[in-house]
Amino acid sequence: MSESMAGRQHTHFQAGELPALKYDANGLIPAVVQEVTTHEVLMVAWMNRESLELTLKTGYTVFWSRSRQKLWKKGETSGCLQRVREVRADCDADTLLVLVDQTGPACHTGSVSCFFQPLPVAGLGNNG
Amino acid sequence: MSESMAGRQHTHFQAGELPALKYDANGLIPAVVQEVTTHEVLMVAWMNRESLELTLKTGYTVFWSRSRQKLWKKGETSGCLQRVREVRADCDADTLLVLVDQTGPACHTGSVSCFFQPLPVAGLGNNG
Repeated sequence: MSESMAGRQHTHFQAGELPALKYDANGLIPAVVQEVTTHEVLMVAWMNRESLELTLKTGYTVFWSRSRQKLWKKGETSGCLQRVREVRADCDADTLLVLVDQTGPACHTGSVSCFFQPLPVAGLGNNG
Repeated sequence: MSESMAGRQHTHFQAGELPALKYDANGLIPAVVQEVTTHEVLMVAWMNRESLELTLKTGYTVFWSRSRQKLWKKGETSGCLQRVREVRADCDADTLLVLVDQTGPACHTGSVSCFFQPLPVAGLGNNG
């Protein structure tokens, strides 16, 4: 956690005020999207400052598409919108958690969550 | 999702086999850590291939510290270890979800989760 954030823990920010978030060299910050009711982690996508401001202002997630290099309103084509219920920054202010009401599947494959490919962990009996 | 992953959805990988994960330009992949019982998203950290292999092999999370440029076994100093219960890659194979039994708080601030700084979302009554 940076010293500049030290006095700001657990506080609510004023309207229009954003904490001093740390964007990466490309001006992006990762956003973990979690379903607010089921608590399932749905996806991780990236935001720049503009997409974050649109997300906070409109109440629907807007990301920055790294592959297409443009703003991307989640569900704009598919209808699988994400209504934002909460946004939180982490202790380092370099990652976001976005709690949403997800309409339909979050994943473009049709899966509820993008995280459906298990990796083998030793000693858990799922090694093959 | 890359075409090479298309036939591999929902399959378990063989022992010792890892899916063709996409690491970034620094050889890193983000890992979202979620508590397996409470479903709380605890933190996001980064893994390189070695730290992922150590995580899968030992059953405890090991990350790559970008600030210290070294492997970092979570909880090695604090005792707040993360016993790994599941690891999943996302559809694009460029992000990991790690479900853990968390001992103690995940955050170095003493917070259960690193995500404790709310941002104001319009229309939700938490704008200040």
